Amino acid sequence: MAASTEIVSLDQLIASSLSGHDLREFNRIHYGRTHHHAIEIVSTVQRFADDNGFEIAAYDFPANQEETRNPRLVKVGVIQHSIAAPTDKPIVVQREAIFDKIRKLIDAAGEAGVNVLCLQEAWSMPFAFCTREKQPWCEFAESANDGSSTQFLKELALKYNMVIVSPILERDEIHGETIWNTAVVINEFGKVIGKHRKNHIPRVGDFNESTYYFEGNTGHPVFETKYGRIAINICYGRHHPQNWLMFGINGAEMVFNPSATVAGLSEHLWCVEARNAAIANSYFTFAINRVGTEHFPNEFTSGDGKPAHKEFGHFYGSSYATAPDGARTPGLSRVRDGLLIAQIDLNMCRQIKDKWGFTMTQRLDLYADSLSKAVKHDYKPQIIRNN
Amino acid sequence: MAASTEIVSLDQLIASSLSGHDLREFNRIHYGRTHHHAIEIVSTVQRFADDNGFEIAAYDFPANQEETRNPRLVKVGVIQHSIAAPTDKPIVVQREAIFDKIRKLIDAAGEAGVNVLCLQEAWSMPFAFCTREKQPWCEFAESANDGSSTQFLKELALKYNMVIVSPILERDEIHGETIWNTAVVINEFGKVIGKHRKNHIPRVGDFNESTYYFEGNTGHPVFETKYGRIAINICYGRHHPQNWLMFGINGAEMVFNPSATVAGLSEHLWCVEARNAAIANSYFTFAINRVGTEHFPNEFTSGDGKPAHKEFGHFYGSSYATAPDGARTPGLSRVRDGLLIAQIDLNMCRQIKDKWGFTMTQRLDLYADSLSKAVKHDYKPQIIRNN
Repeated sequence: MAASTEIVSLDQLIASSLSGHDLREFNRIHYGRTHHHAIEIVSTVQRFADDNGFEIAAYDFPANQEETRNPRLVKVGVIQHSIAAPTDKPIVVQREAIFDKIRKLIDAAGEAGVNVLCLQEAWSMPFAFCTREKQPWCEFAESANDGSSTQFLKELALKYNMVIVSPILERDEIHGETIWNTAVVINEFGKVIGKHRKNHIPRVGDFNESTYYFEGNTGHPVFETKYGRIAINICYGRHHPQNWLMFGINGAEMVFNPSATVAGLSEHLWCVEARNAAIANSYFTFAINRVGTEHFPNEFTSGDGKPAHKEFGHFYGSSYATAPDGARTPGLSRVRDGLLIAQIDLNMCRQIKDKWGFTMTQRLDLYADSLSKAVKHDYKPQIIRNN
Repeated sequence: MAASTEIVSLDQLIASSLSGHDLREFNRIHYGRTHHHAIEIVSTVQRFADDNGFEIAAYDFPANQEETRNPRLVKVGVIQHSIAAPTDKPIVVQREAIFDKIRKLIDAAGEAGVNVLCLQEAWSMPFAFCTREKQPWCEFAESANDGSSTQFLKELALKYNMVIVSPILERDEIHGETIWNTAVVINEFGKVIGKHRKNHIPRVGDFNESTYYFEGNTGHPVFETKYGRIAINICYGRHHPQNWLMFGINGAEMVFNPSATVAGLSEHLWCVEARNAAIANSYFTFAINRVGTEHFPNEFTSGDGKPAHKEFGHFYGSSYATAPDGARTPGLSRVRDGLLIAQIDLNMCRQIKDKWGFTMTQRLDLYADSLSKAVKHDYKPQIIRNN
């Protein structure tokens, strides 16, 4: 499907088709507030984005004033982007081309005052797992601590006093040279404070990721940073509410979902899952998807009976943020690179827990017990029969 | 808010504001398919609905043909309705007035060939828990086995060869005369095959339900009926993904979410949660909400600093169905009584499990272990600190 026939975003379509009372009611009923609380972008930053061909959008999520706590305002940024060089170029060339693009987007984020930034899944490479070829794609894997991507981002984190979450293909040199799908957390001093590995690995359509790496073995870490407690639910983990739940239990206030997913497969789920997680766990979520269509040198099949082909489907972007109260931003473009900024007050997390009571009424003891029974091989499901 | 100022439904608004390619793309991206597969209602049934002032809508969810299993087609109906008599009338009068209304809706469902039907939460009474008054409202509580509501529905179940799920306020005569929020399952022979009690009880806004009844003690039963395996996640339980999960683990193919919830509190969550559950668990879900505004004899406050008042907010209806593949129907009206019918093929559940692999990749052993640790009082959350 050519990008030119693609709708840029459902949110733009709605905003251009509805007006007045109807648009306010649509926004209230669908998004949780009558208007989107857009924040104006400083003109120099906007011009820089325009000149470099990417979208930039910012929205505010104010919380209530409290008597005993000060507001905890954080500017969170997420970046979606297409690859920047053909996939038959040398790996170093492909990576450097993406670095050049990302540097501009992070410059814009830095100028806009972003405190915490997250990139998309496997941001420094094409999403080549559709091919099932081990070479050359495995060569994109890098050390979490000092690989090229980490080195590149450390400088920018330090320059902009920014925490950066960097989802990469990781090579674990000291554990059998294994490959993992990993998010590296770099603090505002440019130091790697830890990493998290993708817990749930897909085997669907072109997402042959289990061919390359295993289910993550890092649990559900929450990273306590200068700007609040963050966690990362990588891509396919968004389909698993228990994954989101454990990050909440461990105290996350912001959970990123760096993804790579395509139209036809998942797009109608996209607006549902990360938003549901924000609601169920009273934290902020950020759904991030790459954009564009990636072409590969050799043909591959997709397990759908159709002829071999050389291109992955359309990565539909549409990155968005959701607050603990269920309100969400419009999505970024379905077809362009973009930077989405959400100005949030972390106090909203506890305020919503107090209001809605979802953590109080969770009955985790019941589920700890039920799940422990359910995983046994001789488990008898609780079925009531018709007699 | 007067009903006259309410938008009838977001889906109608979209369908009347978009057209052609834009409407098809909206439907595809948002709902999972380019058109809604509406099924025409037999003219006599449609006329009966029109004459009696309720909406009726039907949609098809076909599955793929299989070589080794026949299709398992089921017509599922859900009913949303307002109360039918003022709340200061005698209880028996209020209940009979609702019975008279519901009889017509079930007649329409029967004529339309519905196999499994579910009513809204506490369908045979006003949602009086906003008042915090024990009398006269506790008198609405009835025996699950042979209370008025069960007696009334048994006849209709038998008449139409229909399984009926009846969510009522239950009085448990043999366990301390306690009150519960319960769904009774009546089979096609008019026999009660079991019941399920609401697992998660709200304490928010006008939903003072913990004043009246406790968290359910019936686990997560799945009822194996002639028409497939059903379960019931009552109202506030939809905010808890673990509740949905356990019904899936126990084998549910259709899960009903009979609810009573109001605009301003939950409406922007409504389209998210039951749909997310269908996706995460590869089963069909049916979200059912009452309609109308209920006025009570004595004033009450809502814990929001506002003056005492006599009316509950606007119950916004909008009942809808979601398939395991994430496609969903438009919602019923936000302001009128209605019957929604979904013709489904239960084979889709396993087809989607095979396609998306969410049950295969669930890692329940990980979560059984993590939750068992998390509920301990000396649990140390997995937090990685900034040094």
